[in-house]
Amino acid sequence: MNFIKSIVENKIFQWFIIGVILVNAGILGLLTMEHTPETLHALEVLDQICLVIFCIEIAMKLIVMRGAFFKDGWNVFDVIVVGIALAPATGELSVLRALRVLRLMRLASAIPSMRRVINGMFAAIPGGGSVAAVLFVMYYVAAIMGTNFFGKTVPAHFGDLGTTFFTLFKMMTLEGWPDIASDVLEHHPRAWIFFVIFIVFTTFTTLNLLFGIIVDAMEQAKEADARQQMAEQGVEVTEQSNEMRLAIIEDDVKHIRALLTNMSAKPAGE
Amino acid sequence: MNFIKSIVENKIFQWFIIGVILVNAGILGLLTMEHTPETLHALEVLDQICLVIFCIEIAMKLIVMRGAFFKDGWNVFDVIVVGIALAPATGELSVLRALRVLRLMRLASAIPSMRRVINGMFAAIPGGGSVAAVLFVMYYVAAIMGTNFFGKTVPAHFGDLGTTFFTLFKMMTLEGWPDIASDVLEHHPRAWIFFVIFIVFTTFTTLNLLFGIIVDAMEQAKEADARQQMAEQGVEVTEQSNEMRLAIIEDDVKHIRALLTNMSAKPAGE
Amino acid sequence: MNFIKSIVENKIFQWFIIGVILVNAGILGLLTMEHTPETLHALEVLDQICLVIFCIEIAMKLIVMRGAFFKDGWNVFDVIVVGIALAPATGELSVLRALRVLRLMRLASAIPSMRRVINGMFAAIPGGGSVAAVLFVMYYVAAIMGTNFFGKTVPAHFGDLGTTFFTLFKMMTLEGWPDIASDVLEHHPRAWIFFVIFIVFTTFTTLNLLFGIIVDAMEQAKEADARQQMAEQGVEVTEQSNEMRLAIIEDDVKHIRALLTNMSAKPAGE
Amino acid sequence: MNFIKSIVENKIFQWFIIGVILVNAGILGLLTMEHTPETLHALEVLDQICLVIFCIEIAMKLIVMRGAFFKDGWNVFDVIVVGIALAPATGELSVLRALRVLRLMRLASAIPSMRRVINGMFAAIPGGGSVAAVLFVMYYVAAIMGTNFFGKTVPAHFGDLGTTFFTLFKMMTLEGWPDIASDVLEHHPRAWIFFVIFIVFTTFTTLNLLFGIIVDAMEQAKEADARQQMAEQGVEVTEQSNEMRLAIIEDDVKHIRALLTNMSAKPAGE
Repeated sequence: MNFIKSIVENKIFQWFIIGVILVNAGILGLLTMEHTPETLHALEVLDQICLVIFCIEIAMKLIVMRGAFFKDGWNVFDVIVVGIALAPATGELSVLRALRVLRLMRLASAIPSMRRVINGMFAAIPGGGSVAAVLFVMYYVAAIMGTNFFGKTVPAHFGDLGTTFFTLFKMMTLEGWPDIASDVLEHHPRAWIFFVIFIVFTTFTTLNLLFGIIVDAMEQAKEADARQQMAEQGVEVTEQSNEMRLAIIEDDVKHIRALLTNMSAKPAGE
Repeated sequence: MNFIKSIVENKIFQWFIIGVILVNAGILGLLTMEHTPETLHALEVLDQICLVIFCIEIAMKLIVMRGAFFKDGWNVFDVIVVGIALAPATGELSVLRALRVLRLMRLASAIPSMRRVINGMFAAIPGGGSVAAVLFVMYYVAAIMGTNFFGKTVPAHFGDLGTTFFTLFKMMTLEGWPDIASDVLEHHPRAWIFFVIFIVFTTFTTLNLLFGIIVDAMEQAKEADARQQMAEQGVEVTEQSNEMRLAIIEDDVKHIRALLTNMSAKPAGE
Repeated sequence: MNFIKSIVENKIFQWFIIGVILVNAGILGLLTMEHTPETLHALEVLDQICLVIFCIEIAMKLIVMRGAFFKDGWNVFDVIVVGIALAPATGELSVLRALRVLRLMRLASAIPSMRRVINGMFAAIPGGGSVAAVLFVMYYVAAIMGTNFFGKTVPAHFGDLGTTFFTLFKMMTLEGWPDIASDVLEHHPRAWIFFVIFIVFTTFTTLNLLFGIIVDAMEQAKEADARQQMAEQGVEVTEQSNEMRLAIIEDDVKHIRALLTNMSAKPAGE
Repeated sequence: MNFIKSIVENKIFQWFIIGVILVNAGILGLLTMEHTPETLHALEVLDQICLVIFCIEIAMKLIVMRGAFFKDGWNVFDVIVVGIALAPATGELSVLRALRVLRLMRLASAIPSMRRVINGMFAAIPGGGSVAAVLFVMYYVAAIMGTNFFGKTVPAHFGDLGTTFFTLFKMMTLEGWPDIASDVLEHHPRAWIFFVIFIVFTTFTTLNLLFGIIVDAMEQAKEADARQQMAEQGVEVTEQSNEMRLAIIEDDVKHIRALLTNMSAKPAGE
């Protein structure tokens, strides 16, 4: 088992896996084109080989890490995307065949710096949770109102709740909303109020959400850097905000000054 | 009355209300679909029950808080959205029927973290007031100019002030502006000056406005966090900017150094 | 003259002027609609009265401030927009009639907080000068290339330099660029390289430019606030960056510590 | 050689080159229009003269700097864009004729402030490398999935990998995506899942990327300013983050206070 461990943790092995993912990416790209039956067969065999290599890799990791394996979300992700490729892709499940390509996302789990980017994004999402909830409520209310108001007269865009949701998503990307609006305005001349309010509010809230998440992720990365720098130089690492530190220093310095002024006023040895 | 107060402030009661709002959301969603008369009736009865529960909740809060009730904007909001559902929704007021769904926005008033998000947005709006005023003046001037210039030749987009306002709003979202522009350019070959200036200025000012509000809201949240941290650790909470603190510390430290240099120059006991 | 000065600097007089601008805004808004000859005449007379008031205001300011009057850009702006309304608006100059409405922008010069917003924007523009220059060079190069490449085959979009400039502006707002691209791709199948590169580069540079200006304006406002706070509390106002202050403090504190360690090592009175 | 060096480094010579680039820009602009054969000939001769001047400039720099010449990316850039203009532009290479205009980008290499802007952008790109890699993987996976899913039914947008890449680029700019989506939804009613996920993820990741690069570039510029200010005022320049400095100061100040409290407790001379 120590032998397997030394392989799994070997840099060369990790680069080899990254190489296999890249080769697999190339094969899946080539498979989208027309080929002679022979070439097609060769590509599919190569694809199967890549898949087998991934299975072996996962098996080796499982042997080494055992229970701890599933605690890392990335391992779970690897198992799922490889599992999809193994699932029988016939009949109702034929869509799974197309999802095979998700396997290439393993690149993000295999390269540490990409992993960190995605981890950073996910870590920042909870901070935006409340904003996302507000956005969703606004969305849901608008969808019901839209369906009730315009469902009968403009069924193409507001026929049922699902259609309205998709229409509102289109409007949130601002794409083609004047056309949707003009279809509705024919029947409901005051509907512009609905459209203007919806666009202003969702655009603002969406921007707020995206911004919050991005800025949060950046600041966490910056703080992590600062903390690492502190640790490297032997400074005590604490989780205080700059405001906090400044307030503490200000207070200390004020006391020091008072002490010193006092000391120099009554000359020493008095 | 203390009994009612203990109910209103009870966590379980608050979760119950959130639950009722969510159930109500589901019912209003289902009501957008086609149903048999029986199902329809059942759903409407359930909707009425939710409404009754909201009325009781508001009544209880009113009894407990009395005058103070209306000082919190969220309570006023709750009363209005529940009131809309109670208003007779026939004849001219039938639009109110569709506005019933606004009741679901109560979710934002019932969940503290969503409440904070919306409070934060509203708190940041005054900071953007002047920018919004500038944007509005630019908008109004452009609307009058557009109507005067193109009103006769392109009535579909610039026929009267209201139409022009809506056209300019569309152009501000950049959606379909080249089509509007090409309709106008047929008659007024130099109108591109108007369009380019309008788009550059409003896009810039709008971004400025959104940005200002979002960044402001973020900084206020951050400062509030820092202040809370200070309060928790017993550091004196003051409203100084970091620049201010740094300047004060710098000044104190300079004095301290001078004092000490002086003290160590003439040896103690001299 | 002191009498005129006291009027001009009087708060009530300033509010009166703001009122006149708002009334004038209403009149110009009403003038976009259809009216009976009498109403039309009345509105035009009112408009003339507003104009006369503005002339008198400017004259009074000129008497009080004399040479200094034209040093403030806002006064120059006032003179120009009022001057446009006085210019004969017949024949070739009839466009000036429509520009009368620019007079309403005086609101921004009359209300200090709006004035500050616009001043802030203009103050931040030089900081973005180099980025704007880069953007313009990219733009000009793309315009010549576009005209040379596609001028013959797609004259509607790239016929001459002016048309190409407008087409590129449309593409920079991303509005309808796939349609322009597909018109061109019919004749030049490799033109997608041009479109993708142009869109990626200009979008990025424009965002960079807008961002730089907005962030700059915000930071200047923040610094100005900090400096004002310092001045109010009697702290010496200096133009140092936070990094600078921190480095100075760090240095001083290190020396102080060394001095003190030294002093406490050899006991006083030794 | 010292003579040539003094010329190359002469301010006047540099301004002369900038002037030649601007004149060349004008000529290339004029060349996009229709001219009489004589004017055309004159313009082309002028263009050749500009080109000769550029060649001489580069030759002079080469003589002065020798090996060091090619170490500066800007010089390489100058050689390439001038080289393109010298290359024979017939037959298959006729596209090079149109690329002559890239020569105007030399303006960015000749004016230091524009140079700094572009250097700043390029310096910030590596920081966004991992995000860009994530974006590219998402893109590639979506392209293969799109081609596999919709290639047969909607060949106009998803016919082969190249077409799908261009379609996805269009969708990433949000331009016209509802039209593409509705073409696909006709055949694959569940394809909205693909579109919504693709748009949400790529928009977010793109914003994240742009933001990261822009903010990074700004902070580097700010730090460089702070460091320069420090150097000018004789403060020791170090590469510490503000968090780091604050932590060090906090620690020192705490020790100083302890020392002093200790000293004043046992009176001097004891």
